[in-house]
Amino acid sequence: DAVDIEKVLEEIKGDDQLSHSRLMQTAASVREVSRQLQRRPLKRAVRNVMVITKARDNTLVSLTRELAMWLLGTPRYGKDIGVNVWVDSKLRKSKRFDADGLVKSDERFKDMLRFWTPALCLEQPELFDLVITLGGDGTVLFTSWLFQRIVPPVLAFSLGSLGFLTNFDFEQYKQQLNHIMGDAGMRINMRMRFTCTVYRAAASVLTNTAQSSSASLSTSMAGGPPTRTNTNELESTKIEGETHEVLNELVIDRGPSSYISSLDLYANDSLLTRISADGIILSTPTGSTAYSLSAGGSLVHPDIPAILLTPICPHTLSFRPMLLNDDMALKVSIPFSGRGGAFVSFDGKGRVELGRGDEVVVRASAYPFPTVMGRPLEWFDSISRTLRWNTRAAEQKGW
Amino acid sequence: DAVDIEKVLEEIKGDDQLSHSRLMQTAASVREVSRQLQRRPLKRAVRNVMVITKARDNTLVSLTRELAMWLLGTPRYGKDIGVNVWVDSKLRKSKRFDADGLVKSDERFKDMLRFWTPALCLEQPELFDLVITLGGDGTVLFTSWLFQRIVPPVLAFSLGSLGFLTNFDFEQYKQQLNHIMGDAGMRINMRMRFTCTVYRAAASVLTNTAQSSSASLSTSMAGGPPTRTNTNELESTKIEGETHEVLNELVIDRGPSSYISSLDLYANDSLLTRISADGIILSTPTGSTAYSLSAGGSLVHPDIPAILLTPICPHTLSFRPMLLNDDMALKVSIPFSGRGGAFVSFDGKGRVELGRGDEVVVRASAYPFPTVMGRPLEWFDSISRTLRWNTRAAEQKGW
Amino acid sequence: DAVDIEKVLEEIKGDDQLSHSRLMQTAASVREVSRQLQRRPLKRAVRNVMVITKARDNTLVSLTRELAMWLLGTPRYGKDIGVNVWVDSKLRKSKRFDADGLVKSDERFKDMLRFWTPALCLEQPELFDLVITLGGDGTVLFTSWLFQRIVPPVLAFSLGSLGFLTNFDFEQYKQQLNHIMGDAGMRINMRMRFTCTVYRAAASVLTNTAQSSSASLSTSMAGGPPTRTNTNELESTKIEGETHEVLNELVIDRGPSSYISSLDLYANDSLLTRISADGIILSTPTGSTAYSLSAGGSLVHPDIPAILLTPICPHTLSFRPMLLNDDMALKVSIPFSGRGGAFVSFDGKGRVELGRGDEVVVRASAYPFPTVMGRPLEWFDSISRTLRWNTRAAEQKGW
Amino acid sequence: DAVDIEKVLEEIKGDDQLSHSRLMQTAASVREVSRQLQRRPLKRAVRNVMVITKARDNTLVSLTRELAMWLLGTPRYGKDIGVNVWVDSKLRKSKRFDADGLVKSDERFKDMLRFWTPALCLEQPELFDLVITLGGDGTVLFTSWLFQRIVPPVLAFSLGSLGFLTNFDFEQYKQQLNHIMGDAGMRINMRMRFTCTVYRAAASVLTNTAQSSSASLSTSMAGGPPTRTNTNELESTKIEGETHEVLNELVIDRGPSSYISSLDLYANDSLLTRISADGIILSTPTGSTAYSLSAGGSLVHPDIPAILLTPICPHTLSFRPMLLNDDMALKVSIPFSGRGGAFVSFDGKGRVELGRGDEVVVRASAYPFPTVMGRPLEWFDSISRTLRWNTRAAEQKGW
Repeated sequence: DAVDIEKVLEEIKGDDQLSHSRLMQTAASVREVSRQLQRRPLKRAVRNVMVITKARDNTLVSLTRELAMWLLGTPRYGKDIGVNVWVDSKLRKSKRFDADGLVKSDERFKDMLRFWTPALCLEQPELFDLVITLGGDGTVLFTSWLFQRIVPPVLAFSLGSLGFLTNFDFEQYKQQLNHIMGDAGMRINMRMRFTCTVYRAAASVLTNTAQSSSASLSTSMAGGPPTRTNTNELESTKIEGETHEVLNELVIDRGPSSYISSLDLYANDSLLTRISADGIILSTPTGSTAYSLSAGGSLVHPDIPAILLTPICPHTLSFRPMLLNDDMALKVSIPFSGRGGAFVSFDGKGRVELGRGDEVVVRASAYPFPTVMGRPLEWFDSISRTLRWNTRAAEQKGW
Repeated sequence: DAVDIEKVLEEIKGDDQLSHSRLMQTAASVREVSRQLQRRPLKRAVRNVMVITKARDNTLVSLTRELAMWLLGTPRYGKDIGVNVWVDSKLRKSKRFDADGLVKSDERFKDMLRFWTPALCLEQPELFDLVITLGGDGTVLFTSWLFQRIVPPVLAFSLGSLGFLTNFDFEQYKQQLNHIMGDAGMRINMRMRFTCTVYRAAASVLTNTAQSSSASLSTSMAGGPPTRTNTNELESTKIEGETHEVLNELVIDRGPSSYISSLDLYANDSLLTRISADGIILSTPTGSTAYSLSAGGSLVHPDIPAILLTPICPHTLSFRPMLLNDDMALKVSIPFSGRGGAFVSFDGKGRVELGRGDEVVVRASAYPFPTVMGRPLEWFDSISRTLRWNTRAAEQKGW
Repeated sequence: DAVDIEKVLEEIKGDDQLSHSRLMQTAASVREVSRQLQRRPLKRAVRNVMVITKARDNTLVSLTRELAMWLLGTPRYGKDIGVNVWVDSKLRKSKRFDADGLVKSDERFKDMLRFWTPALCLEQPELFDLVITLGGDGTVLFTSWLFQRIVPPVLAFSLGSLGFLTNFDFEQYKQQLNHIMGDAGMRINMRMRFTCTVYRAAASVLTNTAQSSSASLSTSMAGGPPTRTNTNELESTKIEGETHEVLNELVIDRGPSSYISSLDLYANDSLLTRISADGIILSTPTGSTAYSLSAGGSLVHPDIPAILLTPICPHTLSFRPMLLNDDMALKVSIPFSGRGGAFVSFDGKGRVELGRGDEVVVRASAYPFPTVMGRPLEWFDSISRTLRWNTRAAEQKGW
Repeated sequence: DAVDIEKVLEEIKGDDQLSHSRLMQTAASVREVSRQLQRRPLKRAVRNVMVITKARDNTLVSLTRELAMWLLGTPRYGKDIGVNVWVDSKLRKSKRFDADGLVKSDERFKDMLRFWTPALCLEQPELFDLVITLGGDGTVLFTSWLFQRIVPPVLAFSLGSLGFLTNFDFEQYKQQLNHIMGDAGMRINMRMRFTCTVYRAAASVLTNTAQSSSASLSTSMAGGPPTRTNTNELESTKIEGETHEVLNELVIDRGPSSYISSLDLYANDSLLTRISADGIILSTPTGSTAYSLSAGGSLVHPDIPAILLTPICPHTLSFRPMLLNDDMALKVSIPFSGRGGAFVSFDGKGRVELGRGDEVVVRASAYPFPTVMGRPLEWFDSISRTLRWNTRAAEQKGW
């Protein structure tokens, strides 16, 4: 077994007199293991390839057919045939995709061309050794949405200019796929996702006790935000709602309301602060180039394990964008004393309203999103290219 | 032996057919080990305590004496006497400290009261089980400067209001030291430091070959910044200069020059970009509340392993503050084609000029700075308190 | 007649050979006149005082009664009686205000206590020599809303801490009113307002010509934003909608839509740029301390004749807050090619949806909002106080 | 006489009972006059043209010769000859310019080709009806430096891409000069300049009274920044130093010092705030696209009469860029209690050190800098072009 984690943890606990310098040394060692793991290419044979694209886009459907044909037919791994290809079940009847025509070209393809459904992605993600996306960054976000638990390695082809997430050029798909499906293997970027869970205030319970509890609440809240030591007595009455994995960000904002949002932010159940703002963004490093950047957040390399907290138009000048460590469970709740509700959305989708007392809990997901790397420093290329990072323009005048 | 890193690494290499999901599982395990290590309190007996303060400040010297007396005399670890105390050798002759008087009060103190020198800190840091600082954040930075290699755990007492680094109130020193020197042990925050090394362009070599090399340079540079693939032919002629460990930040700026700085930024020897700015700050997460914040950087929790790159008055609007992962070696070099030199400083000290072709290499240090934690979430307290984080003021007007 | 503007303009036109230095001199003279006018106190007798407050707030109604009584009864301008007082017609029947009791205390009050209605403010604003507001900044915004054309001088009392607009402390109302109603007169701050007019795309006209015009539009728009020289052929089909005067700002945002806003910005009917953002704020200098500040705008002294254009979370890093000169007519239109509509609101009120082709035209109003000044530099006091301007906190660490 | 300012002012003063609405009407009229003046083209015959360029740049000298020849020889204003041309006296002996050759081509040129010196610009600026610059924005700044009092209209040709100030393309110089020297005349942009005066603390006086005065100072300063009511007793002992006109900005910074600057900011001799920062920029609207922008300032249209106060890396998060009205005299002084001095520079030049007690006073200049306008909205073109204003790049991702 590769790393016997239980044994290691036991050893650490056992050595009660571990000295400071020994502890530092051990920590450094563990870190080095972690880095080696990150740099280690995956070399296992890729026997099942899933292809994701926009099934309504004619161009993309044609390219998917071309790609599928090539993957099915190109001999690989010592056989005279290619690998299994899974395409969207929506293409089963597509005239443009013409599955029947494909199968007719080589009868062995009949078993090898398969069709995926969202249900299959959720239930049997380990079926796929590699996911190929054709499209833009949006298609990659859609892939993240499909795989709410384990995600297979994702290779994202761009059809035009490369994006933040689409780091392979489709024009060279043959060379690139031969490379990573061959001896070189694929290097993986483990992109953090967040697991976001909505908890609803138990309205029925509240209704029964409304007169007493809301009275006491309005009293305790009147003098300002609750204090750090304040324990939320109503906590036990929350009802767990939907859960989403996000790759870019979770946004909570005031929506169409013209009242500012008042949001209470907790870390590990301790209140950190009450936020007055148009909203807040909780972004992954991957999302640091998206909405968080527009709201003033820093650019964060995707290898950094951090949660970006970026306020949207905060009503205090000192509330600056922050990076929190990823082993915290962050909770945002709508105060009972606030003037209005708020809206939450997940990677720009699934927008729902939050009422008073509702909460969203965000933590680093146990299911990261593995993307196949093109080359070292490609993140810098992507920001140079897409954001025109530091392109020279605003020269100061000199004589 | 706690964790046999070599064995683990070998196992990882050996398993050539490691599947993607197995790799993810292993990575998660390693991460969990890392977290357990971070949360694990140090419980070893503290037998040697070093005290650092400003030897010229009368009040601090008196308090140092009081603290030393208490540490020497308070029975601990099953003996009827306290622990060894190391004070600044500058205090050996201080009337106010009155070392002789101290020793006279109990003859056993004669061997137990010892004097440290900067040389001792550099050469035998493992002599000290705990360092106590009395003063402000500046005294903590001075401690970082004293220990250029391994740093013992540092407990920072504040004498007035708590600072970013001074998280213990001196008024309660007895309870707090009894606590962490007792069964509870001390929890440690491993704060990243940077190892910064200056490399000088080999002027003599350059002089000899000046006509040819500078000619070719001016040609290659004339059309703008060098391209990513450009290899620096003069690299082999650099002469290694001074090395500093920094806890807050390294700053490279234009100093008194009225010309803007032009700086080339490399990661792992690849050119990322040419920067036109008043300067740049390379800050640790610990330094994110200092100069980097003034220049527009985000607040970064000290547990996050990241290097902050914060430009000072950049001359392109799109050059935003960035966070780079800490396993990169960053290099900043002064282009040969630039109009002027630059200045570099280390935690605000050691300011020296850099000429054309000089370089500074910055990487995460193998010697982090361990600080004793007060309580969980204390970082949030420190920013709330010191930066008035999100204090309510700029309310939007409503009817 | 004070300044014969026609004569002056004619003289300027007539002198065809005006030299450059003569032109400069004249411009400077005109500017000096403008400054003298600004600094000149109004000394005319204040015979009619209007009081505006929240009629539903019991405390404020009581204070309004106290104030009215004092104004009615305090001898002024050579008579043995006070001045006419106009209160909200909602107070006519209020038991707490007790108009009957007031009138009974002195029979002359019967003619002097009068009641205003919103209609009266709109139609006969010149009835009032002075408006006194009791409440917060919101009450001042409400006053601006009441007077959509000429606004009488407004003196804003605060009941607690002073705000940005409420610069007089009610505790000292007698001294302060005696002062400005006496020989000293009142100095006036002429705060710019914007006249904002919504123009709706003429849907019926569009429907009839839909096939041809939308076809040509989708062609012309396909390749990106329209060019500067592009003339909007549909312009003549706009239908004028509502008009509002705003004192703080006009906001156009994406509302509940999760699609970003695409907005075309015109100055004097020339397209300046297409904006991709969550929205934009067009703010007066008075509004520079409100929403615009949250979105990153500068603080602007209310004497400066400028229009602040502050983007909300712009999707390009180089789109910085701007100040435009106030003799431009700015137009924001919703492109036909955009994905969604937008919402517009006026001083945080009157929120309505805008569809494709709808436009909002904003220009400096002919009806500024005159506020009575307390003392010189009071704007600096207000920002120091309310925004804790430059309160010392984020000290850089030093040794 | 164009506008009889004295008469107008007298009328305003005379009408003691001027009503509020009459005052507003008059203010609006005066403003309209001011706008008409701005839009009014100068049509006077241009008989003397000055040409400014970099006399050391060979290409520019050749173009200057070409331009001079054309201006001298092209018949204009009803004569069969051109206008007088003044070139840099440094060109008198230049072989490349070949003044003798020029004069030989037409003997009438002998009187018409003249040579300017800096002294002439200072003493007889009204000699020139038009200044033409050839070069970049730096040449325009140099022109501002040459004319410390009245500045003739300046037409700035660019030789490559247009800059912020160089708004005419030299490739079309004949058409453009024929146009503005013809019936159309030239429209002028009156760009605000600042008059900046340095006042030195009178060291000798201080020395004599050092014991008493510095003692009282250290007392009064010890507890923090002086209060608003604090009157500076040492004010009378200042010695007036150099005065500069600036077109872009005045910068006060900490220079090579590693200590932060502490600066006291006064408006009309009232202390506004003590600033802790790397420095401050006092910028004109023209300078808003230069250094101020790098430090986070807004873009400000040059027609707006405002002073930009932009802090450089301020040490409090709430110290945001501000715009102050231009009828204030701003004073920045180096506190006696500060740790170090500061440096001041004027349009990036004339850098000198300031010691404790030294002051710089900045006010809107009586001598604006008139630039010839190309076309309406050209400012927007310049920022679009040079700053890539709102160029589309950072698209938010969508599915």
